[in-house]
Amino acid sequence: MSRTIALTFSDSKLNLVDQRRLPSVLETFVCKTYEETEFAIKDMVVRGAPAIGVAAAYGVVLAAGQFKGLSLEKRKAEMTKALGILNASRPTAVNLMWAIKRMSGLVERLSAEADEFFYGKLKEEADVIYNETIELNFQLSDKGAEVIPQGGTVLTHCNTGALATVDYGTALGVISRAHELGKNIFVYADETRPRNQGGRLTAWELLQEGIPSKLIVDSAAATLIRDGKIDCIIVGADRIASNGDTANKIGTFMLSVVAKVYNVPFYIAAPLSTIDFEMTDGSFIEIEERDASEITHLEGKRITPEGVQVYNPAFDVTPAANITGIITEKGIVKATVEDISKLK
Amino acid sequence: MSRTIALTFSDSKLNLVDQRRLPSVLETFVCKTYEETEFAIKDMVVRGAPAIGVAAAYGVVLAAGQFKGLSLEKRKAEMTKALGILNASRPTAVNLMWAIKRMSGLVERLSAEADEFFYGKLKEEADVIYNETIELNFQLSDKGAEVIPQGGTVLTHCNTGALATVDYGTALGVISRAHELGKNIFVYADETRPRNQGGRLTAWELLQEGIPSKLIVDSAAATLIRDGKIDCIIVGADRIASNGDTANKIGTFMLSVVAKVYNVPFYIAAPLSTIDFEMTDGSFIEIEERDASEITHLEGKRITPEGVQVYNPAFDVTPAANITGIITEKGIVKATVEDISKLK
Repeated sequence: MSRTIALTFSDSKLNLVDQRRLPSVLETFVCKTYEETEFAIKDMVVRGAPAIGVAAAYGVVLAAGQFKGLSLEKRKAEMTKALGILNASRPTAVNLMWAIKRMSGLVERLSAEADEFFYGKLKEEADVIYNETIELNFQLSDKGAEVIPQGGTVLTHCNTGALATVDYGTALGVISRAHELGKNIFVYADETRPRNQGGRLTAWELLQEGIPSKLIVDSAAATLIRDGKIDCIIVGADRIASNGDTANKIGTFMLSVVAKVYNVPFYIAAPLSTIDFEMTDGSFIEIEERDASEITHLEGKRITPEGVQVYNPAFDVTPAANITGIITEKGIVKATVEDISKLK
Repeated sequence: MSRTIALTFSDSKLNLVDQRRLPSVLETFVCKTYEETEFAIKDMVVRGAPAIGVAAAYGVVLAAGQFKGLSLEKRKAEMTKALGILNASRPTAVNLMWAIKRMSGLVERLSAEADEFFYGKLKEEADVIYNETIELNFQLSDKGAEVIPQGGTVLTHCNTGALATVDYGTALGVISRAHELGKNIFVYADETRPRNQGGRLTAWELLQEGIPSKLIVDSAAATLIRDGKIDCIIVGADRIASNGDTANKIGTFMLSVVAKVYNVPFYIAAPLSTIDFEMTDGSFIEIEERDASEITHLEGKRITPEGVQVYNPAFDVTPAANITGIITEKGIVKATVEDISKLK
């Protein structure tokens, strides 16, 4: 019973668990270039806001490796291009922009340094981000565990485990921690259409960790909530505005509405790097629309009629008013401007 | 641009559109016995509450054909067994019990008649149910069309078109009728996990009829409702209690909660045969739990990890308080004991 780490960096290569292939195959997708890293993020070989941030940081390291031997000026131009491409690989998760901004600042400061030093320092910084991410996720998981009562039943959506966050997890990290603490919990996991991260990844991680659970279709959650079968709902976040409005996987908003009507506590679990302090509210969050084939096809097979039109937003925004609390590595705060600004 | 009829009876055979295979293949599943009819209902070759009722009525006719030549006593025993088996083929849809009760009464009254007359009268009664069903669905579709405004956008869940009701449809019949009347409507169709009746059947019927539409995952409906993109929601029903509480495909309740919070009209469209006047409220409705494989597999392929546990209720109950109106062949009524009792 143990967790599987989403990614490692060794021998100048970024090794990703290929999350498109789980749970049928546990396979590594190796990136030797930043372009392969961009592809891996876009195609969701690696997914989950914190894991994307770490992968992108290593993508910058790979770029530095690719541009060894160029003039300083040329290297700078190529690095700027790589940073831009990685930054644009997915639009909603703020951790990606946060990691790229951090790496970008270092690229700028080291622009006069020789290749080896340049590469080494970037690698060091990516490693710091990697280790920080693991530590932060442990901290928030540990602090969040208190919201789950002894013998409680938790509902979660999408995948927010080690696969999404390098190790531990955010919402699923909190759940894991409550389980480790011997709380005798039970988990309902939404399958999370259209990409079934719940059915493929969360169900797999829950089984790996030996946490008692059942998988449900997303729209079955509402009756469980109404019927008093759920003690709390915990989900992750891709971006949190400074007022607490939260973008997360499509379906999160629906859960929050039902939870509010039936007075079930609804928590967001996310590291501080997910908070976009510059953004006043959720209306500014760009919602990624993904390809129709995510709905029309499943594993390459057509499951809908030819010619069907599709609307496929990957995320939705849950208003702060529907959120009971935000679980961070610094503790649990209310989804208000006042409480969130104290985290800065 | 036309509809496909769900079933026909000819040459002593019940011909069903095999709805498990749509939209990739349009194929007929032929029943020559009541046992085959029971299988077809159980395995959802035919589905949709009104279509199930009609199919079961013809199942009784097939039984009468199978038992020609037996003594009257033996025939009676075998028919009683067949009626019981057909009646139990699915638990939630009341139309099934309604059709079987109607056929059962006739079987009783004709128990002394010779085989040919017995068979012929049962066949006549099944034909009456068939034709009544089509007529009722046209009436309710025509009367319901008024709830959709000119240029309006409708959201629907599951499949309630001709495939579910022999011809026309209930909720989708209302939508078809509004389209025929030139209302320039637009439809969002939920894919409706786990069996994807929306993605497979509703999307297919909307394309066949040339009605502009988009397919969404079930949990994407909530933001469309909140953002004012939906003028009304219309769904079908598997059973309506005398107080208006309504059992329908899993996910209906979730939509009703969000619709109520955001003041979007929420209609049930169902013939009177769907109303269970004996049942005081929805808490008495038996909710069918279907096989885990509906969630763990898709078209025979495993899409979840081995060993995963599943909770798979096929229906949920929407409280009358969340329902704006019930569209029937006698007109649109409020979901109240008073209004519903007038329909008796």
